Amino acid sequence: MENGSKRWGFRANKSLGSSSSITVRGVLNLLVDSLNKEDTREVVPLAHGDPSAFPCFRTTPVADEAVADAVRSAKYNHYSPTVGLLPARRSVADYLNRDLPYKLSPDDVFLTLGCTQAIEITLTVLAQPGANILLPKPGFPYYEARAAHSHLEVRHFDLIPENGWEVDLDAVEALADENTVAMVIINPGNPCGSVYSYQHLQKIAETAKKLGIMVIADEVYGHLTFGNTPFVPMGVFGSIVPVLTLGSISKRWIVPGWRIGWLVTSDPHGILQESGVVESIKGCLNISSDPVTFIQGAIPQIIDNTTEDFFVKINNILREAADICYKKIQDIPCITLPHKPEGSMFVMALMMTWTSVIKLAKEESVMLLPGVAVGLKNWLRITFSIEPESLEQGLDRMKAFCQRHSRK
Amino acid sequence: MENGSKRWGFRANKSLGSSSSITVRGVLNLLVDSLNKEDTREVVPLAHGDPSAFPCFRTTPVADEAVADAVRSAKYNHYSPTVGLLPARRSVADYLNRDLPYKLSPDDVFLTLGCTQAIEITLTVLAQPGANILLPKPGFPYYEARAAHSHLEVRHFDLIPENGWEVDLDAVEALADENTVAMVIINPGNPCGSVYSYQHLQKIAETAKKLGIMVIADEVYGHLTFGNTPFVPMGVFGSIVPVLTLGSISKRWIVPGWRIGWLVTSDPHGILQESGVVESIKGCLNISSDPVTFIQGAIPQIIDNTTEDFFVKINNILREAADICYKKIQDIPCITLPHKPEGSMFVMALMMTWTSVIKLAKEESVMLLPGVAVGLKNWLRITFSIEPESLEQGLDRMKAFCQRHSRK
Repeated sequence: MENGSKRWGFRANKSLGSSSSITVRGVLNLLVDSLNKEDTREVVPLAHGDPSAFPCFRTTPVADEAVADAVRSAKYNHYSPTVGLLPARRSVADYLNRDLPYKLSPDDVFLTLGCTQAIEITLTVLAQPGANILLPKPGFPYYEARAAHSHLEVRHFDLIPENGWEVDLDAVEALADENTVAMVIINPGNPCGSVYSYQHLQKIAETAKKLGIMVIADEVYGHLTFGNTPFVPMGVFGSIVPVLTLGSISKRWIVPGWRIGWLVTSDPHGILQESGVVESIKGCLNISSDPVTFIQGAIPQIIDNTTEDFFVKINNILREAADICYKKIQDIPCITLPHKPEGSMFVMALMMTWTSVIKLAKEESVMLLPGVAVGLKNWLRITFSIEPESLEQGLDRMKAFCQRHSRK
Repeated sequence: MENGSKRWGFRANKSLGSSSSITVRGVLNLLVDSLNKEDTREVVPLAHGDPSAFPCFRTTPVADEAVADAVRSAKYNHYSPTVGLLPARRSVADYLNRDLPYKLSPDDVFLTLGCTQAIEITLTVLAQPGANILLPKPGFPYYEARAAHSHLEVRHFDLIPENGWEVDLDAVEALADENTVAMVIINPGNPCGSVYSYQHLQKIAETAKKLGIMVIADEVYGHLTFGNTPFVPMGVFGSIVPVLTLGSISKRWIVPGWRIGWLVTSDPHGILQESGVVESIKGCLNISSDPVTFIQGAIPQIIDNTTEDFFVKINNILREAADICYKKIQDIPCITLPHKPEGSMFVMALMMTWTSVIKLAKEESVMLLPGVAVGLKNWLRITFSIEPESLEQGLDRMKAFCQRHSRK
C-alpha cells in the first residue's frame, strides 16, 4: 500500500462460498464450462428446472395481461406490506381451500419471493441453537444450503426408490430426537417425479405427530401430476399435525422469474400461532425483501381467470415427455429408471459408475444433473420438461454415448 | 395434547422479533394503531418514505411501458442468473459511469431486490466473527436490524446538525479499530435531507483509507437533489478507497414496489476482488432471491428512454415541498429545523420534549416518524415527498397542535 494507509482491514465471510457451492446452480455452472464449444448441435438442457424458455411451455396470456394491467394501473408502485397485499393473500387462500377439508384465512398466507424465499424464511425461523431438521435424500439442495447458512443441523432420511420414492418413516423415527423441529417433504417430488398417495401422506402426518414435529410440505410442483396418483396437499392432514405449506406460481404457471410464492400455515388447531412460529415468521418478513407489489396486484386475476385448459395442456405435455423419457431409457444400456415419473418435471435414474455427466456434456452437448447434487451418488436427475422433440434428441444422444462407451 | 403425541417439539427463533422491531415499518405500525378512527379528516402521512401513491409522483410511462413490453415478450419468464441479466448490468454500469472518472464494467454490478437487499448482502458478506461496522447516527435502521441478524457489531458516529449533518470524522477515527471493516454513508441523506459536498466526500474517503476500511455508499436517493450542493457519487473517490455503492430505481423513478436495486464495486484498483469480497458477494447471491427477470429485462429501456424532463419535474416538486416545509416550520413554536433539506425526501427537526408523535397522530391525524426510530431521541423525521397541498395541511395541523399545547 501507499504511505499513510495501513493494510485494508476488511475480509469477507468465506463460509458463503461453501454453503452456496452445493446448490443446483453451482453445479450447472460447472457443467456449462464442460461443453464443447465446437459441437454445432444444440445443447439439450436436461439438467435445468426451468421450462419457461420453451414455446410449448409458454405461460397463459391471462397471466401476462394481468401483470401488464397491474403495472399500467400505477396502483401498485408502492412498497408492499411485509406479509403481502391482502387481496393476493385472500386469493391464494381461496386457491388452496379448493382442496382442503377446512378453510384457510388470508392471515394464514404470507407472500414470498417464490418458493425459494419461503424455504429461506422457514429455515431461518426454525434455526434455534441446537435444533435439527429432517430432510429427504435425494432432495432439493437449497434446503441444505440455507440450513448451513442458519447453523441449523440437518439429518437425512432416505426416500425408497422401490416404493415409488416414499419416505422411509422408520428412518424418520430413528433420526428424530427432542431437538428435532420439523421434517420436509417435497410432493410432487423433486428430484424423483414421485407423487405421494393419500395413505402415505397420512402416515407421514401421524409419524410427525408422534414425534412432536411439524411437517414442511414443499408443494412448489403442486397439481403438476399426470400419472395415476392424484395430488393431495399435505394441508389435508393439518388437523393431525401442523403443516407449513410452501408453494408458488413459478411451476404451475411456468413463470419462475416472476418470484411470487407463499408460506402458508395449514394448521386449523393454531399450534403454530401458539408456539410463536407465526410471530417469528412475521419478524423475519419484516427484515426481508418483499415480492414485487404489482405482481401481487395481478395475483387475483391470474388465479381466477386462468382456465382449466391451460393446466390440462401443460400436464399433457409433461405426460408425453415423461412417457418419452421412460420408454427411451429402457433402450439405453447404462441407465435404469426404477420408477416412472408421475409428477413434477424430473426423474431420478441410476447409472453405471463408468459414465460421467461431464463426459456426456463434452461429447454429446447433453446436460444432466449428477445425482450427487441432490444427495445421491451414482444417480442422475433428468429434467423432462423441455420441448418433446428436443428431449428425444437428448435421449438418443445419451443412448449413442452409452453404446459407444460400453463397447469399449 | 391428545393421547399418543408428545408435546410439540419445535420453537421459533425469537430474536427475529427483536431485530425487526427497530425498523421504520415496525414503528409505523404502532403509529397507525394510535390514529383516531373518528377523525374524518384525511391522515397526513409525513412518516412514510414512499411517495408513489401520490398522483404528482407518478412514475414515467416510459417505465410502465418498458415493463409491460417485457412481460408480454415472454422472453423473461425464466429464472434470473444470480448476479442479474447482463444487459441490465451493463445498463446500470453505463448509468453510473456518466458521473465517474473511470469506467465500471457490467461485472462490477450485481442486481438486487431494491437497495434493501443490497444492504442485506453487504452486511452478510462483512459479518465475520469479531468484525464491527461504523454506522451514522441518525441513520436508516434497517442497517442496525440486519447487522443484529448477522451478529455484526455496530458502532455509531454522529452526523453534526450544525455542519449540515456532515460526518463527525474525528468520531470515526476514534471508533475504528483493527476489527472495523467499513463505514456507511447515506448521501443524499436519509433521514437528514443533507447532500455532501465533493470536499466532504473526499475527506471521508481519505479517513477511510487511513483506517484501512471500505466505504459503503448508500445512494438510493442519488440525484434527488434540489439545493445548492450537487450530487457527487462516492465512487468518484474509488481510487482512494474501495467503495461499495448501493442504489436502486425505487426513489428516482418512484417505483419502490418494483424491487430493483444494485450493489456495485466502485473500486478501480480491484481491492475488493483481491480481498475475496467480490467472491463472497457472489456466494451470498447464490443463496438469495433474485429480482424479477422481466423487470431486469426492462431496465435498459427504462434507463435509456427516461427523459430529463421527468427527473427535473420530480426534483422541482421536491424543491417546492422542501421550501413549504422549511417556511412553515419557522412558524411552529415547538419545532426547529437546523438545516434546510437539499436532497432525499426527508428532513430532521428538533422538537420540544413535551410533544409526542403519538398524541399528534391521535389528535391531528398527522403521522411523523419519531427520531428515536432513526437513532436520535427528541427529534422528528418529516417526509416532505407528498402532495404539496397535503403537506401544507399537515404542517398547519402541527402548528395548531403545538399552539394548543404550548398555551397550556
